[in-house]
Amino acid sequence: MTGHPTRSSALLTDKYELTMLQAALAAGTAHRRCVFEVFTRRLPAGRRYGVVAGTGRFLEALADFRFGEQEVDWLLADGVVDEATAQYLADFRFSGTIRGYAEGEIYFPGSPLMVVDATFAEGVVLETLALSILNHDSAVAAAASRMTAAAGDRPCLEMGARRTHEEAAVGAARAAVVAGFVGTSHLEAARRYGLTAIGTAAHAFTLLHDDEEQAFAAQVASLGAGTTLLVDTYDVTQGVERAIKVAGTGLGAVRLDSGDLGVQAVEVRQQLDALGATGTRITVTSDLDEHAIAALASAPVDSYGVGTQLVTGSGHPTCSMVYKVVARENAAGELERVAKASASKASVGGAKNAARALDARGRATGEIVAVGSPEAVAAWEAPGRARPLHVDLVVDGEIDTAYTGAEGVRRAAEHHARVRAELPLNALRLSVGDPALSTKVVDLG
Amino acid sequence: MTGHPTRSSALLTDKYELTMLQAALAAGTAHRRCVFEVFTRRLPAGRRYGVVAGTGRFLEALADFRFGEQEVDWLLADGVVDEATAQYLADFRFSGTIRGYAEGEIYFPGSPLMVVDATFAEGVVLETLALSILNHDSAVAAAASRMTAAAGDRPCLEMGARRTHEEAAVGAARAAVVAGFVGTSHLEAARRYGLTAIGTAAHAFTLLHDDEEQAFAAQVASLGAGTTLLVDTYDVTQGVERAIKVAGTGLGAVRLDSGDLGVQAVEVRQQLDALGATGTRITVTSDLDEHAIAALASAPVDSYGVGTQLVTGSGHPTCSMVYKVVARENAAGELERVAKASASKASVGGAKNAARALDARGRATGEIVAVGSPEAVAAWEAPGRARPLHVDLVVDGEIDTAYTGAEGVRRAAEHHARVRAELPLNALRLSVGDPALSTKVVDLG
Repeated sequence: MTGHPTRSSALLTDKYELTMLQAALAAGTAHRRCVFEVFTRRLPAGRRYGVVAGTGRFLEALADFRFGEQEVDWLLADGVVDEATAQYLADFRFSGTIRGYAEGEIYFPGSPLMVVDATFAEGVVLETLALSILNHDSAVAAAASRMTAAAGDRPCLEMGARRTHEEAAVGAARAAVVAGFVGTSHLEAARRYGLTAIGTAAHAFTLLHDDEEQAFAAQVASLGAGTTLLVDTYDVTQGVERAIKVAGTGLGAVRLDSGDLGVQAVEVRQQLDALGATGTRITVTSDLDEHAIAALASAPVDSYGVGTQLVTGSGHPTCSMVYKVVARENAAGELERVAKASASKASVGGAKNAARALDARGRATGEIVAVGSPEAVAAWEAPGRARPLHVDLVVDGEIDTAYTGAEGVRRAAEHHARVRAELPLNALRLSVGDPALSTKVVDLG
Repeated sequence: MTGHPTRSSALLTDKYELTMLQAALAAGTAHRRCVFEVFTRRLPAGRRYGVVAGTGRFLEALADFRFGEQEVDWLLADGVVDEATAQYLADFRFSGTIRGYAEGEIYFPGSPLMVVDATFAEGVVLETLALSILNHDSAVAAAASRMTAAAGDRPCLEMGARRTHEEAAVGAARAAVVAGFVGTSHLEAARRYGLTAIGTAAHAFTLLHDDEEQAFAAQVASLGAGTTLLVDTYDVTQGVERAIKVAGTGLGAVRLDSGDLGVQAVEVRQQLDALGATGTRITVTSDLDEHAIAALASAPVDSYGVGTQLVTGSGHPTCSMVYKVVARENAAGELERVAKASASKASVGGAKNAARALDARGRATGEIVAVGSPEAVAAWEAPGRARPLHVDLVVDGEIDTAYTGAEGVRRAAEHHARVRAELPLNALRLSVGDPALSTKVVDLG
């Protein structure tokens, strides 16, 4: 199990979860069975689909969700909880069941992304951790998916660590790979999730040396002619000439990191070809987003390095996923649907399941959400060709580790590629639009 | 020292830093003295000032920047570096000197926010870590500063953990407090940096119980009448009535989390006063940003809980700080100014120092940046009433721990309040504008 290997994740939590727990323990309601649901009321304005990411990281964090002596002592010392609650937390192990959309899955407003079936006490303390991870990673994955769709067969490389929190950078690189990126510049992300690490040199390396030729020679001597040389520190045309002079026509690639990338790529391609370096690739890396990538489709560019716009979700740095109780046991021991009444933040009560309706050719035609008791929705069979969307993530406290670690990322990336290909073609348009599928709710009573 | 206490920060790094290191070690240039500078070419569009935050976290991460056996083994196994580089990294200790703007300081385009004076090898490997931390935390602090300015004397409370990466949430809460927030909902942030943790209950707690009155009674029984009751799960007017019925007129506060907050606050204030609960406060928490806070200035609101817009930088989730080499030793052992030539990404060569010019009443009138050799700029005395902006953060590898941990946050928050008060009044306007001060460069030759 990777991720926070040496530190508890239990305090990555909002205080109110523990004060609610304390009050419920005292009132005798903490052990009522509850169903919590993660969903979103809307996609970011203009987006046509969302991408679930972070599921594997959530399961890794859940495995580390333990209140150790250090955590409990601090909670007592800071007056966050009383002794009875501290005692409960010291023994805490999540023993409930969690179903949800597989990582990499496409989603829409109202999709029941994760369903937590547990006591109130066990479910309520997971709210912040689940939302932090899913909201962040899914925001990056949604942007990444638009970028890889725009890039077509050309590889996209993640390089955004410097423009996000240093640990968020790990989650962002991972989420980018879930949505089709082929590598990352970030070493810890590569190590933790078995990703391909990429990168060769910055302008600082050229400036360190007495001239550009010396810098290129030093790089090629150490990294081989297959390396990527950054050619825009001084003058691109001279840079390309020196690059081939030093590395020979077997040079792996040149990188352009400033200026009008489309125009420069054409000129550099002609220059490289004229020099006989027909196999030398061109990678571009300056302030790209999905629109810039699409605009470069006809330019002779071989790969895209994306940073800021990827890790900040291309204008939408978070999702609006919420974690709501949708059913709970009453005083008589019966499970009842519940929902907040406020008009602007209404939610649909009841446990849920979901399936994606497909036509005869396997093209998605809609989202079906079934509502009812946990037992009814668990047993629900989607009609016709619909593909079930829920998988078991945790059963009676047992985490399915197939969704975690490097293996989890690999599966999620495969899943995303497969299910994105099901979508109606207009789902992949970058222009402002409505959700690509609409959602039908089936009430099982 | 807090922050990542048990894990090395050394792999929170882009691969190219280590490949550059390897090539420079092989070429014999790795130990040339270099000056690296963190600066930004621009503020986010329309912003009038930036706020430095994350300095303390960077120093904490620097203390943990060690390539242990685990890290070195992985770097070799993944083929990131060769044996000679691995050997260098195993012994790595930063022994250079870092000066910079104190945490909480205001900045403008071109401000030399951090100046790293070290060998190329020691300076180049800190690029990603420094930028990740400073770009993230400063983006949150800049948004937080606008919010606390708009809130005036009313306290702002940080509640955004669920809308950002789970570890970024810690940095975000900390940065919010640097810029004037008085507390955070996030337990780990409170623990790690000695912040005030806040929060009582969510809608889930009301929904757990058979009716709202039971839920309120359970909360008051456990947390006391001084607690905050969330009154908008069903009907606000009934909620307020029940809250006072259960808690009495000594109820601490009610929280509104949906609807038209300004209109509701007026109605709730009238209702509370009519019920005799004249001391019961009103806190509001639904999708606030600095503009919504400003719009509520005349409403009877006592405190603001801010989430999404705070942790996402209120439209600008990252800063555009870069880390550039501005001077380096040449083959002859002399320090030379260097700079990238590309028109759109030009930088000013040379080590720098800075001061804020003040008028006779202590009001800031401009930013002065001195450029020259590290020795000349270190000895530079700002003219007239100007306030020096650089402090020593690390001297010959020795970290000044006064800037780290809980003490560092306290100092940074005090500093921010003091230096924001120096700014021209129009600096605090929320409308789109230009940088509040312009920058004058003094070349010391």
